Amino acid sequence: DVRLFGMKPSFKLVVGMVGLPARGKSYIARKICYYLNWINIKTKVFNLGEYRRQGRRASEMADFFDPSNNTGAQHRQELAEQAVYDIESWFEDSGTVAILDATNSTRARRQFLMNRCGQNGWKIFFIESICDDPEIIKNNILQAKLGLPEYQSMDTTAAVGDFQKRIDFYRSKYEPLDANQDRDVGFIQVVDLGNHFVVNHPKSPLEFRIITFIMNVQVAPRVIYLTRHGESNHNRMGLIGGDADLSPNGAQYAEKLHAYFDTLNLPNLQVWCSSMRRTRQTTAKFKNVRSFKALDELDVGECDSMTYEQTQEKFPMFFAERERDKYMTRYPRGESYYDLVQRIEPCILEMERVRGDLLVVCHQAVARCFLAYFKNVDNLADSLPYQEIPLHTLMKISPTPAGGKCCVEEIPLGIACVSTHRARSTERMPLNTPRKPSTPVPSPLATLSGPPTA
Amino acid sequence: DVRLFGMKPSFKLVVGMVGLPARGKSYIARKICYYLNWINIKTKVFNLGEYRRQGRRASEMADFFDPSNNTGAQHRQELAEQAVYDIESWFEDSGTVAILDATNSTRARRQFLMNRCGQNGWKIFFIESICDDPEIIKNNILQAKLGLPEYQSMDTTAAVGDFQKRIDFYRSKYEPLDANQDRDVGFIQVVDLGNHFVVNHPKSPLEFRIITFIMNVQVAPRVIYLTRHGESNHNRMGLIGGDADLSPNGAQYAEKLHAYFDTLNLPNLQVWCSSMRRTRQTTAKFKNVRSFKALDELDVGECDSMTYEQTQEKFPMFFAERERDKYMTRYPRGESYYDLVQRIEPCILEMERVRGDLLVVCHQAVARCFLAYFKNVDNLADSLPYQEIPLHTLMKISPTPAGGKCCVEEIPLGIACVSTHRARSTERMPLNTPRKPSTPVPSPLATLSGPPTA
Ligand SMILES: Nc1ncnc2c1ncn2[C@@H]1O[C@H](COP(=O)(O)OP(=O)(O)OP(=O)(O)O)[C@@H](O)[C@H]1O
Ligand SMILES: Nc1ncnc2c1ncn2[C@@H]1O[C@H](COP(=O)(O)OP(=O)(O)OP(=O)(O)O)[C@@H](O)[C@H]1O
Ligand SMILES: [Mg+2]
Ligand SMILES: [Mg+2]
Repeated sequence: DVRLFGMKPSFKLVVGMVGLPARGKSYIARKICYYLNWINIKTKVFNLGEYRRQGRRASEMADFFDPSNNTGAQHRQELAEQAVYDIESWFEDSGTVAILDATNSTRARRQFLMNRCGQNGWKIFFIESICDDPEIIKNNILQAKLGLPEYQSMDTTAAVGDFQKRIDFYRSKYEPLDANQDRDVGFIQVVDLGNHFVVNHPKSPLEFRIITFIMNVQVAPRVIYLTRHGESNHNRMGLIGGDADLSPNGAQYAEKLHAYFDTLNLPNLQVWCSSMRRTRQTTAKFKNVRSFKALDELDVGECDSMTYEQTQEKFPMFFAERERDKYMTRYPRGESYYDLVQRIEPCILEMERVRGDLLVVCHQAVARCFLAYFKNVDNLADSLPYQEIPLHTLMKISPTPAGGKCCVEEIPLGIACVSTHRARSTERMPLNTPRKPSTPVPSPLATLSGPPTA
Repeated sequence: DVRLFGMKPSFKLVVGMVGLPARGKSYIARKICYYLNWINIKTKVFNLGEYRRQGRRASEMADFFDPSNNTGAQHRQELAEQAVYDIESWFEDSGTVAILDATNSTRARRQFLMNRCGQNGWKIFFIESICDDPEIIKNNILQAKLGLPEYQSMDTTAAVGDFQKRIDFYRSKYEPLDANQDRDVGFIQVVDLGNHFVVNHPKSPLEFRIITFIMNVQVAPRVIYLTRHGESNHNRMGLIGGDADLSPNGAQYAEKLHAYFDTLNLPNLQVWCSSMRRTRQTTAKFKNVRSFKALDELDVGECDSMTYEQTQEKFPMFFAERERDKYMTRYPRGESYYDLVQRIEPCILEMERVRGDLLVVCHQAVARCFLAYFKNVDNLADSLPYQEIPLHTLMKISPTPAGGKCCVEEIPLGIACVSTHRARSTERMPLNTPRKPSTPVPSPLATLSGPPTA
């Protein structure tokens, strides 16, 4: 059920990365892969470096990349063939997008890929990363390359030197994409960490989405704090939906949250909330809060203000269907998780773009969607709707420099609350079981909670 | 109450167009202006050509643009000063964005603008249109330039010749934007009608929105057909909200609509509908229909399935507030027109990008938002929510080659229905007054309707 704004893409797209080593190709490939999977377009990265390492001993030094080394060149061509072969299986097995993460730095290699795609009826689009700032490159090598298997037993200076040599070998044959010579080739060039972009001959809506996404991505380190609103009166009563006020516990959480950030003292913190009372009340003490209607909780339609049990009684068919496929099933006149992801997608673009730390105060289902994005949850249908997002717990999401799954640290702020998590299948928890605050992990304000207020 | 994703922009932005004559600068300027105004960012175009024509006799031939003609050059500098002066008033008078539609084709002129913006604390961003295809340029001149006042009494060949000469004068001094020479300048270059783009140093979220929009805009002629669903059972009963089925009249409209497009026989027609029963039923006979949840009707929240009278009784405060400001007032736990525009904005981008004709079957409030965009309705708050969008009437929206307000032709398909329009203030029509189908305008299927079925 893959849809692109309501349309199932009928095509297969190969995205070819282009660029010298240590230009963030793998970083960009991973980010796009996570993004597309999250909007339900099945995407996989095929990393040629990993093919190389799988096929051989891990000890290939720069000489392997010397263009005058024929064995190396021939072997790299074989690896590319192997990747195309695997891409074909991936497309047969339900994939829509394959990202070929390799240098693809010569026109001949790219032509080989275009030919293969043409023969198979696949579309192809290139993403080139260009960066000539020696400081950035050196930093990238230190950050991302010293851990490679081939450098396991080498000291830092030697490893950096070898990697620089590898770059030089590639550079001697490097032919960047060029609008004149590659007039009909669809591509985007990302220059100097997103300071400059060149877009050529974009065609499909999917390419436009990739382009828009890439333009918003950046690498400056920062943290995204995600939390649900404080406990609401509806949470306490086990009701879904509604626009209830905070309970006394919830009000305490709002206080605590504000005090916590006061202590962190983040100079450029931005705060977002939804348009609902419980998130606005939770952020009331913060300054410069932006309220997004797009962050509102999953719309439960005609089940608004019911208990789950009432839902089951009144809409048994829906209830059974939702048990079966919680991700795709819409509440009667409401939304599904799938719908919700589409609705909050512009917020993800905006989150990617924001520089500086961000606190997002939202809702259980919305937080599940965001978390699935940042953790790159596999198999959305099976996992996304079941993630546990406890109340009164701050999730500290730290993007990794490699663009991989973010680290998520749970920071319970120690204010008592009910649990609203409903586990999958038979082992259901009653909705309004008072939840004992879990032991706080070390944090600037790791105090313990008192008993529930109400 | 101007918000950018929930944030009131605190800055002023000057957008400077750049490019030789007949490159679509005014086209792009108008499109962006309409778009930004529609998302509630107050924007105005300042066209230097109009300043010139206002100030002088209309008979300025190419010689005026000869760089060796000092009077011309000096006069053009004065016009630029005048425009900056007017932009200042516009910003004082609530404007957020000013688009300076001029050639701005020398680095010196752009530096003058950047200095002025810097002095005033305004941001500046340039949009350059580059096109070297002589066929396109000739076509642009024929299409857009022969109507200019200065060519009123000239024959076509002479006018085209004079305009070509004007272009040549500009070309002799033309300095395109350049990432090396203009490293820190924010700009986008649109090359060959959107076949190629260069983006340099984008900064604010607003610049990103402009960039994304421009990348989606195209000029291929096509038609957008907009209609509401067929009459629903709720329409007949005068109820708002709900997810009712089509009435027998409505079902007849669905048949008629399909037959109408069958006769038009548009080879590349795309059809969109919302996720609601009444639009899906209206499009049931069409092939390849895409259903967008984002096209669902304005969410009336707790007023769902009420009459207006019940709304007034149950929520008198809301009702009075909505009478006062229909555009910004949210239904209790539902949406405002302002919210709706934000929600359907991705659909506008997608509509701009679609090539080929498009039929959009949606709802009264949604259609009002779309129509306001395509007609560039001034003063959204006063006009947008009051536009009359009768049932059973096709709106044929034809974009103009100049990028100005679209022509909208109303084509009633001659099937009887109620009127759901509620006029402003006191002169209220009862909601379920049977509406006599108006006389169809000439159209391929201009047959007359029978009497109401129910
Ligand atoms: N657009 C970019 N330009 C330069 N560096 C970037 C860019 N995006 C991310 N980076 C940084 O590049 C580093 C990682 O490089 P990455 O492993 O992705 O490079 P690569 O091009 O895949 O190298 P290789 O060819 O060796 O696989 C990260 O530290 C990341 O922060
Ligand atoms: N990106 C583009 N490149 C070239 N032509 C375009 C582009 N966008 C629109 N056009 C076409 O350009 C024509 C109109 O030109 P327009 O009046 O906007 O040019 P201009 O650059 O403002 O000229 P002038 O400098 O004389 O004001 C229209 O017919 C429009 O379809
Ligand atoms: Mg890599
Ligand atoms: Mg113009």
